[in-house]
Amino acid sequence: MGDSQVKEFRVGMIGYGFMGRAHSQGWRNVTAAFRTPRIIMESIVGRDSAAVARVASELGWNRSHTDWREVVADPTIDIVDICTPGDSHADIAIAALEAGKHVIVEKPLANTLGESRAMVAAAEAAQARGIMSAVNFNYRRVPALMLAKQLIDGGRLGDVLHIRGAYLQDWLSDPNLPMSWRLQKERAGTGVLGDLGAHVVDLMHHLTGKSVEGVTGHLRTFTHQRPDENGKLGTVTVDDAALATLALSGGAVANLDVTRNAPGKKNELSLGIYGTKGSISFNLENLNELWLFDREDPAGEQGYRRILVTESQHPYLAAWWPDGHIIGWEHTFTHQFFEFLTSIETGKPASPSFADGHAVQSVLEAIAASAENAHTLTAPEQ
Amino acid sequence: MGDSQVKEFRVGMIGYGFMGRAHSQGWRNVTAAFRTPRIIMESIVGRDSAAVARVASELGWNRSHTDWREVVADPTIDIVDICTPGDSHADIAIAALEAGKHVIVEKPLANTLGESRAMVAAAEAAQARGIMSAVNFNYRRVPALMLAKQLIDGGRLGDVLHIRGAYLQDWLSDPNLPMSWRLQKERAGTGVLGDLGAHVVDLMHHLTGKSVEGVTGHLRTFTHQRPDENGKLGTVTVDDAALATLALSGGAVANLDVTRNAPGKKNELSLGIYGTKGSISFNLENLNELWLFDREDPAGEQGYRRILVTESQHPYLAAWWPDGHIIGWEHTFTHQFFEFLTSIETGKPASPSFADGHAVQSVLEAIAASAENAHTLTAPEQ
Amino acid sequence: MGDSQVKEFRVGMIGYGFMGRAHSQGWRNVTAAFRTPRIIMESIVGRDSAAVARVASELGWNRSHTDWREVVADPTIDIVDICTPGDSHADIAIAALEAGKHVIVEKPLANTLGESRAMVAAAEAAQARGIMSAVNFNYRRVPALMLAKQLIDGGRLGDVLHIRGAYLQDWLSDPNLPMSWRLQKERAGTGVLGDLGAHVVDLMHHLTGKSVEGVTGHLRTFTHQRPDENGKLGTVTVDDAALATLALSGGAVANLDVTRNAPGKKNELSLGIYGTKGSISFNLENLNELWLFDREDPAGEQGYRRILVTESQHPYLAAWWPDGHIIGWEHTFTHQFFEFLTSIETGKPASPSFADGHAVQSVLEAIAASAENAHTLTAPEQ
Amino acid sequence: MGDSQVKEFRVGMIGYGFMGRAHSQGWRNVTAAFRTPRIIMESIVGRDSAAVARVASELGWNRSHTDWREVVADPTIDIVDICTPGDSHADIAIAALEAGKHVIVEKPLANTLGESRAMVAAAEAAQARGIMSAVNFNYRRVPALMLAKQLIDGGRLGDVLHIRGAYLQDWLSDPNLPMSWRLQKERAGTGVLGDLGAHVVDLMHHLTGKSVEGVTGHLRTFTHQRPDENGKLGTVTVDDAALATLALSGGAVANLDVTRNAPGKKNELSLGIYGTKGSISFNLENLNELWLFDREDPAGEQGYRRILVTESQHPYLAAWWPDGHIIGWEHTFTHQFFEFLTSIETGKPASPSFADGHAVQSVLEAIAASAENAHTLTAPEQ
Repeated sequence: MGDSQVKEFRVGMIGYGFMGRAHSQGWRNVTAAFRTPRIIMESIVGRDSAAVARVASELGWNRSHTDWREVVADPTIDIVDICTPGDSHADIAIAALEAGKHVIVEKPLANTLGESRAMVAAAEAAQARGIMSAVNFNYRRVPALMLAKQLIDGGRLGDVLHIRGAYLQDWLSDPNLPMSWRLQKERAGTGVLGDLGAHVVDLMHHLTGKSVEGVTGHLRTFTHQRPDENGKLGTVTVDDAALATLALSGGAVANLDVTRNAPGKKNELSLGIYGTKGSISFNLENLNELWLFDREDPAGEQGYRRILVTESQHPYLAAWWPDGHIIGWEHTFTHQFFEFLTSIETGKPASPSFADGHAVQSVLEAIAASAENAHTLTAPEQ
Repeated sequence: MGDSQVKEFRVGMIGYGFMGRAHSQGWRNVTAAFRTPRIIMESIVGRDSAAVARVASELGWNRSHTDWREVVADPTIDIVDICTPGDSHADIAIAALEAGKHVIVEKPLANTLGESRAMVAAAEAAQARGIMSAVNFNYRRVPALMLAKQLIDGGRLGDVLHIRGAYLQDWLSDPNLPMSWRLQKERAGTGVLGDLGAHVVDLMHHLTGKSVEGVTGHLRTFTHQRPDENGKLGTVTVDDAALATLALSGGAVANLDVTRNAPGKKNELSLGIYGTKGSISFNLENLNELWLFDREDPAGEQGYRRILVTESQHPYLAAWWPDGHIIGWEHTFTHQFFEFLTSIETGKPASPSFADGHAVQSVLEAIAASAENAHTLTAPEQ
Repeated sequence: MGDSQVKEFRVGMIGYGFMGRAHSQGWRNVTAAFRTPRIIMESIVGRDSAAVARVASELGWNRSHTDWREVVADPTIDIVDICTPGDSHADIAIAALEAGKHVIVEKPLANTLGESRAMVAAAEAAQARGIMSAVNFNYRRVPALMLAKQLIDGGRLGDVLHIRGAYLQDWLSDPNLPMSWRLQKERAGTGVLGDLGAHVVDLMHHLTGKSVEGVTGHLRTFTHQRPDENGKLGTVTVDDAALATLALSGGAVANLDVTRNAPGKKNELSLGIYGTKGSISFNLENLNELWLFDREDPAGEQGYRRILVTESQHPYLAAWWPDGHIIGWEHTFTHQFFEFLTSIETGKPASPSFADGHAVQSVLEAIAASAENAHTLTAPEQ
Repeated sequence: MGDSQVKEFRVGMIGYGFMGRAHSQGWRNVTAAFRTPRIIMESIVGRDSAAVARVASELGWNRSHTDWREVVADPTIDIVDICTPGDSHADIAIAALEAGKHVIVEKPLANTLGESRAMVAAAEAAQARGIMSAVNFNYRRVPALMLAKQLIDGGRLGDVLHIRGAYLQDWLSDPNLPMSWRLQKERAGTGVLGDLGAHVVDLMHHLTGKSVEGVTGHLRTFTHQRPDENGKLGTVTVDDAALATLALSGGAVANLDVTRNAPGKKNELSLGIYGTKGSISFNLENLNELWLFDREDPAGEQGYRRILVTESQHPYLAAWWPDGHIIGWEHTFTHQFFEFLTSIETGKPASPSFADGHAVQSVLEAIAASAENAHTLTAPEQ
């Protein structure tokens, strides 16, 4: 492990819901695309023994388990991939790192700042022993957003002044959608703020290199009760919508707006980044496109340019298809795993790091704290 | 005046900059389009005698003046149209109403709440005498937004939960753009907040019928000094960007984001209005389009629908061209003047009223007040 | 006339249907926008005396007539504007030119090549006497298409290889839409081919400078009978759809596809022009936009650029509103009249000329001739 | 084989270029997505022994060969997948079918009608023995186009009157792009007509159920010579652009326009299908979207609806991700293989059949024949 002689890696994945399925797709394809060392999809872990065995067979995992400790203790496992709800991340990740496994955790890093701080410490200690860790803010690995970062880093936007970030979905618009762990504070930590807002905050950090220095936030729950599978009403204890204004380092400002109650918006993570020299625009529903405006284009010919990020010179795209043949959402995972494997092979710290995840978490906590402070509201004179 | 026997109206317009040109276009075309009583473009007023005379000739006004009091005192004038900077609105409007002229004022209604409150009182007194008044929030008269209001009023969106409103321009991205009255607090009142934010707040009020119950706001100035025409640096005393979160009546929330420093955004007033049953989306750069999402469309066939609002059954469109032949920004004025003339003829109060303008002003003041309150900012723990 | 001392022009317009309304809008606004000599909307002509008098009052014409010969004979008239169906264009235009009036004719120039050839001869004779003539292919005057021509003339596309031109409407999709002169061969000449196809062919000529050297065409009528206003069925004698392939000079090819039976396409005149170095794309439903692709943009940053053609440096736009404030379809007429007035004032021949109109007509006739030649169809072996 | 007891299938793939890579991705993922019998990627065949061995290792094939006859003769192989250039399809497919292998062939089915006719005969004989065959017109398996077919079959468009089909790419715009087998008639059969036009013709057949009854066609080569890898010029013997008009059964018409010289169009397979009651629009560069216009939507609310075809009720999508999480081009292969495996398991004939491929081929040959007939061109009178 961490040794360039290694020609294959055995992965153990904890959790097997929607995210487990997406992670499996990434592990299944990363080698063919990127010629990494061979990946062996060794172990998958879930609480329901029969269910996890069935999923293992469907998704191509060799073995299934019901206790994550078995995987952490298994000396043949090189990489532990954690896809469980946020409240279990710290325990599993810290144990796995201590057992010498490389660890990649689905976002959010953890549900509390206490947990995430402990995870950062464990990751730093492991790093010193050549053990890698990462949190899966997979949207960093959208090729169009990799290109956005290259453009920003290259100075094409000048100084970034203003960011508009939103993530809009609509699956909670249905008042009869049943209660789930995602709507309960004790499992999910927060609602849309942590689920969707976390991605937007991480992208703001990542793409611009700026930090958040102050926030105001509002949280709102529109549907307070939902039926469980048996029709019994339960109380939603997390936010349906979160709005915030962020003061960024260097005098920039940002707007954050996330909801799961925007009918017709299926998966619109949208970013507008405005600088002194140009701007970019992105929407996850068309994730193969980046729009660039350059104030230095010839006068009279300026306009937003739709870059179809599918060419071999674009990030990751040499691994895929000819120009114009778009790739899907799933390959954010393939790309992230490729990056993680590259870190393991080269010994260069992986990204996004647990510290990156902790930074996001601290912004989200500040937004939630602001939202509870009634003094932030000014009433208009009528 | 106010008499259905009247077959023509004489208009006197105060101010002749960009807005005067746009208002002239509206007055010139309203009769041909809507078969209103004949409009006589009688008097135009500006401070520079030679310049205003030249503009009168170009735009088709019969006479020019350098003192607005001449027009207010002229017994042949029926309607006074005020297009000057905001600091002069109250004086002119109140004098004109007292002189028995119908008055339409370009937005914002005034620069201070004190002024706007006095104007509302004058308007109410005049209304009792059959004298009409209106403030020109012209975007209410975009056909696509009229259609939006019809849809919302008809319940097509269900309960409105969340509004995203933005108005993005880029003409201040050029650091060498010279100083103007729009960048000086004493003339313009505020910067982008009053210039662009006022439109968005009025549309939120108008389209949903909701009022603003609480706000948090941030204002930001990116370029602090600009050269005047002689190259001498002056200080910008207004905001370049304004961001706010609004708590609306009925438990809804709204996001407001306005700037004149977003490269590539030439005139993007965008609205997303999300309800329990559907949503709409609008962008002023494509002002003939309204996008509608209806959660009650058949499953599997749902999607945002691009309504090209150019059909004879759409608001105002029977006055214009065949389906698909788009109209321009200027006709927001034509339509507003048609509505104002209809009020004069029918005696039904005009809209948007001075009270509507005052309500917008009070929200903007609350945003500005919040922005000065440092306690609204919460710093993330690092 | 044709004298720079002239400070005003008197216009007489023949015809007052939809096109008369659009032309009136152009004449009413051209002076304010472009500071041309003053236009006096003097005379309007229609066959129904009461109706034309009413329209004259609505649209702002001083006098109405029922016989076009009165206008042609009127010594005070400077310009004759012909908006009648195509079968009357030749008689009126030739008489007016001979009477020394400048003549602008709505497209198509005429219904037959014999008529258009006679009109070209009359126009050339008149030109020698300083009398101007033009045919109103108004889409040449869309600012975005003026910009397209500038780009093509400047070599930005390299050699043009391939053009895709279409004009799609849907108003004939309703089988109950009543019979009208536009559906009768003796009045309209052809159906969609002359109505919409003529615009596309003229733009191909104009934008690229290429001529059509060979064609194959298909015409199709989908709805063969339509009720008149009393419900009595009449026979449609023109084409509903026309498709053609054109061989252009210099080895280029073009595709032409026009229909009035494409549900949802309200007014989609779309052009794609592909050259060796770049390409442009345009759609009349968003007529303020031009899309440009430049193969010489930096690798990895190439993409179609949406130019919002609303800036003061764009063609005609200095006459209108600030950046991003879109203009409507009607101003194609305003711009065309400005160009025509400029020709009259400068003595430089007007454009599009009658010869341009004849060239379009000869291409349309060749398409119609090809469509009647059954030998053009090859049946696949099954 | 063809037996529901079978729990796994061994695949042998002939060819390993770009298409081999895409097919491998499909085979690698079909089981996890659709819970098919297990796929064993057994054998891959290429002419260069070292190269094919390397690709086998990268893509996950167990064995590599240099002679396709070994795979056809191998009794452990259940399915032969043919991805070679078109001139070898007939030999391999007929041999494989005779050896009792299920056969799927990349399109076009063959380079000549003689070959494709022989393949149809072989497929029919094999079908009688329970051996399945299909030609991989993979775009039938785009979920949005599956939905389009459901809508058309369900009568949502009424009678289809007019189809606009185009496939535009730009990789031949570079005059220095080297010569390849795709540009040589003896290997590729035709140029863009067979490469891209074949897809469009198949979709016209498939989506509407209509057959082509007559054609006119033009073919054009823009770049006549290209360098080989050593810089030596060779002659391009195929078409760069192909344009055709098609008469379809039932009185409909279609327009076909395909090119590989349209700068900026990376992979735009676009379809507009217009019926009496509605229409649909599609563009492969945004393959997760289908646009639907329904003339029976309420008046004033009609418009093209963007259906983001990513919901569990959409074709194939229950196998993938939550609403709004788009999939990539590669899954057209995954879906086609799922359909093919289902045919093998159920014994129901596979689709698209060799007969479907032959029908496309016969239309393409008719277009090419028409293009060689100079009599189809009519010259305009000048």
